[in-house]
Amino acid sequence: MLGPSTVADASERELVARIQQQLPPTPPWVLVGIGDDAAIVEPERNRAEVLTVDAIVEGVHFDRAFVPPDAIGHRALAVNLSDLAAMGAAPRLALLSMALPSTLPLADFDGIVSGFTSLAAQHRLQVIGGNLTRSPGPLVIDVTLVGTVKRRQALTRGGAKPGDDLYVSGAIGAAAAGLRLLRNVVGHQSSGASLSARSTEDLRLRLMTGDSRLTTDDWRLMTAYLTPVPRIRLGLLLGRNRAASACVDLSDGLADGVRRIAEASGVGMTVDASLLPIDPAARAFFGAQCLDPVEASLEADDYELLVTVRPRARGRLAAAIRHGGAPLTRIGRCTEDRAITIRPSGTEATDAALPAGYTHFRPFDKLRVVPSDVEGR
Amino acid sequence: MLGPSTVADASERELVARIQQQLPPTPPWVLVGIGDDAAIVEPERNRAEVLTVDAIVEGVHFDRAFVPPDAIGHRALAVNLSDLAAMGAAPRLALLSMALPSTLPLADFDGIVSGFTSLAAQHRLQVIGGNLTRSPGPLVIDVTLVGTVKRRQALTRGGAKPGDDLYVSGAIGAAAAGLRLLRNVVGHQSSGASLSARSTEDLRLRLMTGDSRLTTDDWRLMTAYLTPVPRIRLGLLLGRNRAASACVDLSDGLADGVRRIAEASGVGMTVDASLLPIDPAARAFFGAQCLDPVEASLEADDYELLVTVRPRARGRLAAAIRHGGAPLTRIGRCTEDRAITIRPSGTEATDAALPAGYTHFRPFDKLRVVPSDVEGR
Repeated sequence: MLGPSTVADASERELVARIQQQLPPTPPWVLVGIGDDAAIVEPERNRAEVLTVDAIVEGVHFDRAFVPPDAIGHRALAVNLSDLAAMGAAPRLALLSMALPSTLPLADFDGIVSGFTSLAAQHRLQVIGGNLTRSPGPLVIDVTLVGTVKRRQALTRGGAKPGDDLYVSGAIGAAAAGLRLLRNVVGHQSSGASLSARSTEDLRLRLMTGDSRLTTDDWRLMTAYLTPVPRIRLGLLLGRNRAASACVDLSDGLADGVRRIAEASGVGMTVDASLLPIDPAARAFFGAQCLDPVEASLEADDYELLVTVRPRARGRLAAAIRHGGAPLTRIGRCTEDRAITIRPSGTEATDAALPAGYTHFRPFDKLRVVPSDVEGR
Repeated sequence: MLGPSTVADASERELVARIQQQLPPTPPWVLVGIGDDAAIVEPERNRAEVLTVDAIVEGVHFDRAFVPPDAIGHRALAVNLSDLAAMGAAPRLALLSMALPSTLPLADFDGIVSGFTSLAAQHRLQVIGGNLTRSPGPLVIDVTLVGTVKRRQALTRGGAKPGDDLYVSGAIGAAAAGLRLLRNVVGHQSSGASLSARSTEDLRLRLMTGDSRLTTDDWRLMTAYLTPVPRIRLGLLLGRNRAASACVDLSDGLADGVRRIAEASGVGMTVDASLLPIDPAARAFFGAQCLDPVEASLEADDYELLVTVRPRARGRLAAAIRHGGAPLTRIGRCTEDRAITIRPSGTEATDAALPAGYTHFRPFDKLRVVPSDVEGR
């Protein structure tokens, strides 16, 4: 019996053809698409262009043992879309560059591409080119995106002022909890090696119908990791109605995002830990694992937006929230004092609300942790 | 004693700062450069945009044992510039994405960046962003370039017509010979493992002053591989004066380039092997190694341009050659008959000129080899 065919059995040209089969027809602004030395496009009128590149590397950013092919493709694009969202940009075009281990099954290649192209289609993002090469090591997916934005509507990290409120979209911690859950499940497999699901749906069926006793909340946490939803619409609205003074995505965690806005804007930040919108199921999971939910959530690479808002722009913010597809939660404030501090509780909370393990908040040299009475105003 | 510091000793932020130190000031059209979630640029007025991405992977495209760090950076950019050249585009901006083994010495990281930024500066190419990540395997450098071109001046693969002449720029085979020479030298090192030169200049000094008995011709062949010169100026001129009807670069070899133009244009091709501008030193080297110079040169990844030219455009072609920085040699012709054939000799040569080993021209299923009398016109 023949084994499953791998990418090594196909020529580069055949692989490109398999990608093209999954792509929609090219719009008129693509003058030359896939198949020449380079692509040629007409720029969009009266728009600045927003460019970003981000790679995901097997063994660093994902593990094929428990991330199904379509989720790999989805994540590769989602992390990049999240960068466009943080700039208030509308996605326009993508270049997809992959380094493929020769043992990669062709079916997995197709799955990766389908995860990528499905998410691209959702955001009217056109794949206009890319590159395929062999990898003697890990699978690497490098994605370049170009988006567009009106110059005055671009969101950057540098616009926050003292007195601005700090908001975060959606909930945090779910992806980190989901990743740990996935790792636990893999560890408990009889083979111990791999879930090797053909797709995210296949994985769901196996996990939810087997004897792994997973709940729907568990699966929701897992999908937060496997197929994160980039906040494109929210970013666009925040830029268009000029509700946000600064914005960053949480691809390196909330703690890192806070520091980045503070540095770029020349402000300090006070974050109220008790206000953090930690996903309830994630909080419960972290608690059961004897982990500090705040600590675990602050380091998590959620694809949410961290936004500063002038007090007078609150009305415009409400409009963005209404149509942006995600709630925004106030978690702190920008300060004149350049210190970046995390407070164990909001001003409305008492010291009794101090989360367990909170004073051992060490891994983040990015944040200076102080007892609430020192920084109390 | 402490070992040399590696990229693992530096934070991503420090590595980014080391790149920035090597970059020129940003021009006004870069609205947001390195340091935000994405870069923002103003598009160039009245120009279409040309986008390309290409990766080089350690162990596939280069070997750190004999390619010095600056040459790695140079090659990573040159292969992409060559794609822009083949479209007749002017380079504008670059995104540099690297996956770095944690053992990579910081000095080598700096060397790679310097090779990249030096070549970028030569072409007024602005590095506006990128990505750095760890690699558990090979060093991977993924480069995205955006160039600009007037819509009517873009060169594509699809414009050739029967009767057009086929030209190739510069000389072919030098890089392939240089690569073999480098491999031979590494094989003869007492350590047998690595030349581990700090830079291309360091490698030159070691090879040319040691007892390796290399000639200046040998070194010239090596540099053809290590630091290829992309034909940006030639591509621009061919597009501007509309001398070329189709163009492709030789990144996958001349044989492949011929097939690509033929397929995209819907023509056949007849290549006269005796007209190929094989580098004389490379030809001698291949001969000494008992290799067929034609075969070895046709598969070589030279960064030359393969161009078709209407007979009536020969005058404009001469102008492009005069200022393009590289000669162009006529090597064949486009035909009505869709067959792609390589002829052992030009019409002016006799059968006696048939190169040795020529009829065993097998590795290229891309080219159909026929005896000259079958296809004789």
